[in-house]
Amino acid sequence: MLGSSVATGARDADDALAFRDADGTTLEAHLDAIDFRGTDTIDAEEWDAWAELHIEQGTVLESAGASVGVVDAITGITTCAADIVGEADHAGATPMDERRDALVAASEFVVEFRAAADDVAQNRSPTAVGTVGQFDVAPNARNIVPGEVSLQMDIRDVDYGAMDAIAERADAALDGLEAAHPVETDFDRYRDQRPSQMADDCVDAAFDAAAAGDIDAKRMHSAAMHDTANVASVTDAVLLFAPSADGLSHNPREWTDWADCATAATVLAGTLARLAGA
Amino acid sequence: MLGSSVATGARDADDALAFRDADGTTLEAHLDAIDFRGTDTIDAEEWDAWAELHIEQGTVLESAGASVGVVDAITGITTCAADIVGEADHAGATPMDERRDALVAASEFVVEFRAAADDVAQNRSPTAVGTVGQFDVAPNARNIVPGEVSLQMDIRDVDYGAMDAIAERADAALDGLEAAHPVETDFDRYRDQRPSQMADDCVDAAFDAAAAGDIDAKRMHSAAMHDTANVASVTDAVLLFAPSADGLSHNPREWTDWADCATAATVLAGTLARLAGA
Repeated sequence: MLGSSVATGARDADDALAFRDADGTTLEAHLDAIDFRGTDTIDAEEWDAWAELHIEQGTVLESAGASVGVVDAITGITTCAADIVGEADHAGATPMDERRDALVAASEFVVEFRAAADDVAQNRSPTAVGTVGQFDVAPNARNIVPGEVSLQMDIRDVDYGAMDAIAERADAALDGLEAAHPVETDFDRYRDQRPSQMADDCVDAAFDAAAAGDIDAKRMHSAAMHDTANVASVTDAVLLFAPSADGLSHNPREWTDWADCATAATVLAGTLARLAGA
Repeated sequence: MLGSSVATGARDADDALAFRDADGTTLEAHLDAIDFRGTDTIDAEEWDAWAELHIEQGTVLESAGASVGVVDAITGITTCAADIVGEADHAGATPMDERRDALVAASEFVVEFRAAADDVAQNRSPTAVGTVGQFDVAPNARNIVPGEVSLQMDIRDVDYGAMDAIAERADAALDGLEAAHPVETDFDRYRDQRPSQMADDCVDAAFDAAAAGDIDAKRMHSAAMHDTANVASVTDAVLLFAPSADGLSHNPREWTDWADCATAATVLAGTLARLAGA
């Protein structure tokens, strides 16, 4: 996502070149070393349209038996961190009614957060998802009442209002914890990337290209992030998916059949030709 | 607790001598090195009575303003482990209704376990305590639906039936999780030390000794484990406590006033004298 963030002006080129890897080497030094550092700049706002082809990284196409996915929206992501602080104490010597158990409070929160995400997915936007994926207990010893829990929430949807609703209910649930338990809480919505809508004319061009080749294309959204999300903020864009076996991705077993690759490339070519007016 | 377990026959002396430290050196080698390894055996069953003096490691005496604690029972400890297994999955690409989220299920369990411990403490035995102190989530990444949670429970009381009730409700709650969620659970009650009752004549001797010295002694139980718990299984025993400042223990700031040490030693001496018929 780095190149597209610079191309769309979301990030300054010098800031990007100053990024360092784990060894402390800058991106600029790496680009110089392979003679890949250009001097020109590109401005995606000047582009008439953009199309990206990627593997799905999920099983929607496989399940539907479709050859190509035409993405009409890319999910937004809101990431929130919460701390729930009670007091660590001896598991034997601390009576039940004198405990400030952070794990019990945090567990109630996880249950409420799941209920909020389920409710929004069932009643407002079926593509909404909310996950508490990281959950760390301190001091995390069998015979000590837990004093603190730190957790991370990942909230995604193509409907920003639905994401907002889950995040707001998370914040309110934490306030409720403070009222019900002798704990203090902290909530930080530290990342908030809005969903990206693909351009109708680009999506139409993709379906037209598929139809011309008698190719079964499926309209879908992307629950993973792609460069197209950045580009779509400044020009018309569309994202195409090829099926990926079992949805595996970033994994040595990642696989897309060659025939599916060729079919997806055919739709990409047809889409570009139509957008170019050819 | 090692010496008392051998003295009471709960553990074989050769097994104890074969214990190794983190460097792999046996207890036998350590005892040989300091010329502390004897050849005689002792049998605590032959003892007429036993008294131990320890710091409280809690704040009961400090809060009560008492100088000495006379322990009439030492808590039992049941330790249980549970695994809750669902399936790790992509936090964006997995719809809410297709998740097998182990953290959500484990969180419900923590809330139920706390309710069970509270209920037993309120309605059956006020000294009962139950704690989920260790709680590990895997893979524990922000953008992955948690696939597994492993947790440890610590259950204590001077009333074994109350401990049993909490452990049984924990086991039943895990079965309930399997019915309500697409997860599998495992429950292992791997340690079960019953509470120890002090002998009435020893407790009476201690109170008599305190009264003779006009010393304010408080009847109490011990929520921590002591050698006396082993010895009490084979002969008459009593445990005395001196106050410990702020309940700190196994800590460089552990402190008992010298005057309190002297007072407790006076009660210990008086107890031993009475038990010896002096």
